[in-house]
Amino acid sequence: MDKALSNKIIDLTTRDIRFPTSARRDGSDAANADPDYSAAYITITTEKGDRGCGLIFTIGRGNNLCCQAVENMRHLVLGSDFEAIKTDISAFYDRLRSDSQLRWLGPEKGIIHMAVGGSVNAVWDMWARAEGKPVWRLLADMSAEEFVGCMDFRYVSDAITRDEALEIVERNTATRTERIARLERGGYPAYTTSPGWLGYSDAKLRRLCADAVARGLRHIKIKVGGDLRDDVRRCRIVREIIGADSRLMIDANQVWEVGEAVAWLRELEPFSPWFIEEPTSPDDVLGHREIRNSINGMKVATGEHCQNRILFKQFITSQAVDIVQLDACRLAGLNEILTVYMIAAKYGKLVCPHAGGVGLCEYAQHLSMIDYVRISAEIDERMIEYVDHLHEHFVDPCRVREGAYLAPEAPGFSVEMFASTLERYRYPDGAEWRSRLGGGD
Amino acid sequence: MDKALSNKIIDLTTRDIRFPTSARRDGSDAANADPDYSAAYITITTEKGDRGCGLIFTIGRGNNLCCQAVENMRHLVLGSDFEAIKTDISAFYDRLRSDSQLRWLGPEKGIIHMAVGGSVNAVWDMWARAEGKPVWRLLADMSAEEFVGCMDFRYVSDAITRDEALEIVERNTATRTERIARLERGGYPAYTTSPGWLGYSDAKLRRLCADAVARGLRHIKIKVGGDLRDDVRRCRIVREIIGADSRLMIDANQVWEVGEAVAWLRELEPFSPWFIEEPTSPDDVLGHREIRNSINGMKVATGEHCQNRILFKQFITSQAVDIVQLDACRLAGLNEILTVYMIAAKYGKLVCPHAGGVGLCEYAQHLSMIDYVRISAEIDERMIEYVDHLHEHFVDPCRVREGAYLAPEAPGFSVEMFASTLERYRYPDGAEWRSRLGGGD
Repeated sequence: MDKALSNKIIDLTTRDIRFPTSARRDGSDAANADPDYSAAYITITTEKGDRGCGLIFTIGRGNNLCCQAVENMRHLVLGSDFEAIKTDISAFYDRLRSDSQLRWLGPEKGIIHMAVGGSVNAVWDMWARAEGKPVWRLLADMSAEEFVGCMDFRYVSDAITRDEALEIVERNTATRTERIARLERGGYPAYTTSPGWLGYSDAKLRRLCADAVARGLRHIKIKVGGDLRDDVRRCRIVREIIGADSRLMIDANQVWEVGEAVAWLRELEPFSPWFIEEPTSPDDVLGHREIRNSINGMKVATGEHCQNRILFKQFITSQAVDIVQLDACRLAGLNEILTVYMIAAKYGKLVCPHAGGVGLCEYAQHLSMIDYVRISAEIDERMIEYVDHLHEHFVDPCRVREGAYLAPEAPGFSVEMFASTLERYRYPDGAEWRSRLGGGD
Repeated sequence: MDKALSNKIIDLTTRDIRFPTSARRDGSDAANADPDYSAAYITITTEKGDRGCGLIFTIGRGNNLCCQAVENMRHLVLGSDFEAIKTDISAFYDRLRSDSQLRWLGPEKGIIHMAVGGSVNAVWDMWARAEGKPVWRLLADMSAEEFVGCMDFRYVSDAITRDEALEIVERNTATRTERIARLERGGYPAYTTSPGWLGYSDAKLRRLCADAVARGLRHIKIKVGGDLRDDVRRCRIVREIIGADSRLMIDANQVWEVGEAVAWLRELEPFSPWFIEEPTSPDDVLGHREIRNSINGMKVATGEHCQNRILFKQFITSQAVDIVQLDACRLAGLNEILTVYMIAAKYGKLVCPHAGGVGLCEYAQHLSMIDYVRISAEIDERMIEYVDHLHEHFVDPCRVREGAYLAPEAPGFSVEMFASTLERYRYPDGAEWRSRLGGGD
């Protein structure tokens, strides 16, 4: 490429940002007693001044490892030409996830995979900003070939081929403007988990449920799996408040063995949960299938800890799940995420992305809107999780009105944080942490 | 516990040790073009001066992340009482792998899981030294209850229960001294991968195969998957040298899609490989099952990248593999490893542990010897991989004679490195790396 036209990435910076959420037991569940919602925050800059940011959501300790993992990919990012990336972003994605030495540490899972995702998503943010569009519109406006060219079919071609994906996307192309208009008019349905953390009292649960319903969030998910009598009582409270026509969802955060899950869930069937989320280990495809085959009248959901498209392929094609809850920060960025949506669409599974934490709602809204416009072309029954924590730290926070995510309008991927937040919550030397840790921890 | 009897762990140190193996293309295969065999090296010390060491094998970049991940578990290790650990090592193991904030980064996979494994294995090393026994003998001499108490049945109780495990171990108890004597007399069978790296010429392959056979290593594994014509030619060379009665094994290091694997392997069937290793993604249980069902006369092997007991459970119980190749450093230490051997024994699968790299042969010999004495009680057809690289760096290196690993005799887990090695190969400031990196990399 002509040197005058090149626009190389010349800077990569990571920041360890943590919020002391454990102090209030926000986010407490059967597996996660005391999360400090955190972000390994990534910024990249090109020689011509283009900028992008990405983040990896974690729950506290180990956030430094994600920053360090991104730093370990510096040789793969710096020097990459932004103009070349825009013509073939898959090549950039593939270079990051294929470094043979780093790959040993996964492969394609855990910290190393999340680091690829954060970096790739920073590039998507930069690209969307350069085009003056939110990420979901950047992808909505691509040609079908360009769009499918962003996906990763490695190790999943036995479930879906590039040609099949292209056929699905092309079939939707003529009608996409109608769906874009609908999103811009009415947004995308949301459900909330804010009321249901295990650490909350019955009174707080009742009050937060009523608040949510008053704000139009009538579908509610609560945490279960600590104590069966507590679960029965809490399910009854929620069902009383939301009524019979709204969805109660329950989330066990991996606490059960396979057989234990079946026995426990039978006790909760009277409250007609729409789905049970994470009944057991997120790695156990065949265990989920066994649970799904053994319970009645309740769908099985998982995915927030599902490590990559290869495990999702198995969950989906073997009929082990009904609801696919992919996480924007656990997979290797938008490229891999699109592949999972595509496999789910082919096999008729609903995708309801995991959100909450910090930044996940901001990311997730783009993902499901892209899916609606280009892949599944369906929105009924689908919802994006919503938790109303920590959005005040974002320059362009998600906006949920009357139970729906409004379509993002600002350029980028919506995860840019305010400079004041980056300063105050930097771990361990931001003002927030200096005062907490200084007191003797 | 009486304070006078306590013996707390008061020091934890990690070292980033790397060997510049990529310079000679030792270890090159279809997925790993240029590994620098490395070890995140861990030492722990108690207040009374007990010491243990462990290591996590990696192939270069990212070795620092493993060290850092172990450092992130400092709060879980320091202050733990060695006397209490010896009465319930499972509680120590469980504390390390259950830290809720760190667990988010797996769960139970990748860097965070490997860090648990390195730390837990350091404690096993310390315990065995305190008893004056090699690790395999420490476990050989335990009561059946104590031995089974070291295993981790979380998320695998649908495949095997503690009671079933105890029954298997008790059945073998009366005859264990015979098997101990046999190991001390004749060792445990080995096979070698040293001749077969993809980066080696035909002449070097031929010479190294002949050398191996001359040393009694008549079963040989080679790398495949780069170019089909090369593979055919190389399989022919090896078969010529080892003859029809020895085992040729082939290893594709994950290069193929499921369908591609089946087509390629049919071309190699004429050379009668005993097994095909890692034909596709190590996460793809159902893909391996499909491959296994579609090829004839060749077993399917995988496991060196298998992340935890939960994935192994699925591989084994769904008949997706024949040969289980667990890796001593990828799982969360000896406790989880014993569980995998136990599941394999119940379902009649052979375990042939992955070795090579640096330190893996040293670890693996203990594992299979424990299995033979206490779990499967079988040795026929089973082999431990052997690669003759880098053993000179260990104080008590494995010893392979006439195609068999001799039983370790020195106290501990055999992975202690010489102080001079730790000094010279420390990255990036040891003498070996200063001279290489100083030249301008």
